[in-house]
Amino acid sequence: MRIDIISAVPSLLESPFNDSILKRAKENNLVEIGIHNIRDYSQNKHRTIDDYAFGGGAGMVLEIEPIDRCISQLKEQRDYDEVIYMSPDGELFDQPMANQLSLKKNLIILCGHYKGVDERVRQHLITKEISIGNFVLSGGELAAAVVSDAIIRLLPGVLNDETSALSDSFQDGLVAPPVYTRPAEYKGWKVPEVLLSGNFKKIDAWRMEQSIARTKERRPEMEE
Amino acid sequence: MRIDIISAVPSLLESPFNDSILKRAKENNLVEIGIHNIRDYSQNKHRTIDDYAFGGGAGMVLEIEPIDRCISQLKEQRDYDEVIYMSPDGELFDQPMANQLSLKKNLIILCGHYKGVDERVRQHLITKEISIGNFVLSGGELAAAVVSDAIIRLLPGVLNDETSALSDSFQDGLVAPPVYTRPAEYKGWKVPEVLLSGNFKKIDAWRMEQSIARTKERRPEMEE
Repeated sequence: MRIDIISAVPSLLESPFNDSILKRAKENNLVEIGIHNIRDYSQNKHRTIDDYAFGGGAGMVLEIEPIDRCISQLKEQRDYDEVIYMSPDGELFDQPMANQLSLKKNLIILCGHYKGVDERVRQHLITKEISIGNFVLSGGELAAAVVSDAIIRLLPGVLNDETSALSDSFQDGLVAPPVYTRPAEYKGWKVPEVLLSGNFKKIDAWRMEQSIARTKERRPEMEE
Repeated sequence: MRIDIISAVPSLLESPFNDSILKRAKENNLVEIGIHNIRDYSQNKHRTIDDYAFGGGAGMVLEIEPIDRCISQLKEQRDYDEVIYMSPDGELFDQPMANQLSLKKNLIILCGHYKGVDERVRQHLITKEISIGNFVLSGGELAAAVVSDAIIRLLPGVLNDETSALSDSFQDGLVAPPVYTRPAEYKGWKVPEVLLSGNFKKIDAWRMEQSIARTKERRPEMEE
């Protein structure tokens, strides 16, 4: 899989892709990440990439021209399954969408910044708009990193233990059960006895019960 | 405002806080960010911070002891309004929650990693659990960065132009209207004429119309 991220502030994307799981995925050639600075595609002499909004109002707007040039150059090199724009009013990202996107071959993710991008980018160059939630960020960079992380960890071979992702919250429509580790007692706070029992049938039943109760309490809308 | 972030992989948090708006906010003393490595609070000789889950199953669990030690040391230094844990099954983060949190003085944010933290941390040390959405990430670091970004940009003086955050999506219960910038025509794609009219009353009315139509289409649940 390959993900190309287009950004006005690419330095924001450095550490999320250079540590931990994503770094290992890159090193093992399980994913390729291209990070592209919109400024490198500006052809005016000051390399500006944003301008005031037509009609007035606060905040700067990213221009269509350098973005179009960047996307076009990428498309000359390979076919893309989706050209995604991160926007607070896009389709809400969730685990089923992460699962679907993890099956794609090549993705472009454009990060908004400042007041957003020229609407004509969204109308003519973008195939899918994704929001990670009903809140506003300084830019789409963190949101793009979130989406990339959620996708990449699903690729076969990325997590050390392949069963680990399957037992995550949401993969079976339930949130995960509580987990405990050593010590068995800490400041008088004890681990539930069933988990120390060695009876795996009972342990599985307890975990399922906890998952169902927690889902009902915390994500009632996830129950059919 | 001060935010202390506790993490098993603090290097993931470097670039989000060292660029753009968050960097400027720190430099102007509008916010203090403390990043704490859980490993520094481990007292066993290998400085381990995680262990297998009681009852078996894939994935490692963060131990309570080093986390408790870290939170206790922070609490000795100042009072905290909330000790937050980032978890996929927490309360869903949204703009009203960002607004509320931006009024607090001191926050701790604990990032889960691997399979999560020992449940006793959540029961006894955490005052609020936040989720940025119904999807699973490699760790809570990106989620903590998202929450911090959404909060910090609301602090007075952080954005260059104070009106900019108020006209964002969700601040008035509506998503933002489309924005356009130069050139007025690109590849035959034109900016709506009203935005070039110079008639600000008409422009405001058009923007409100667009916001309402877009909210109806993209976030029908936001309408009363």
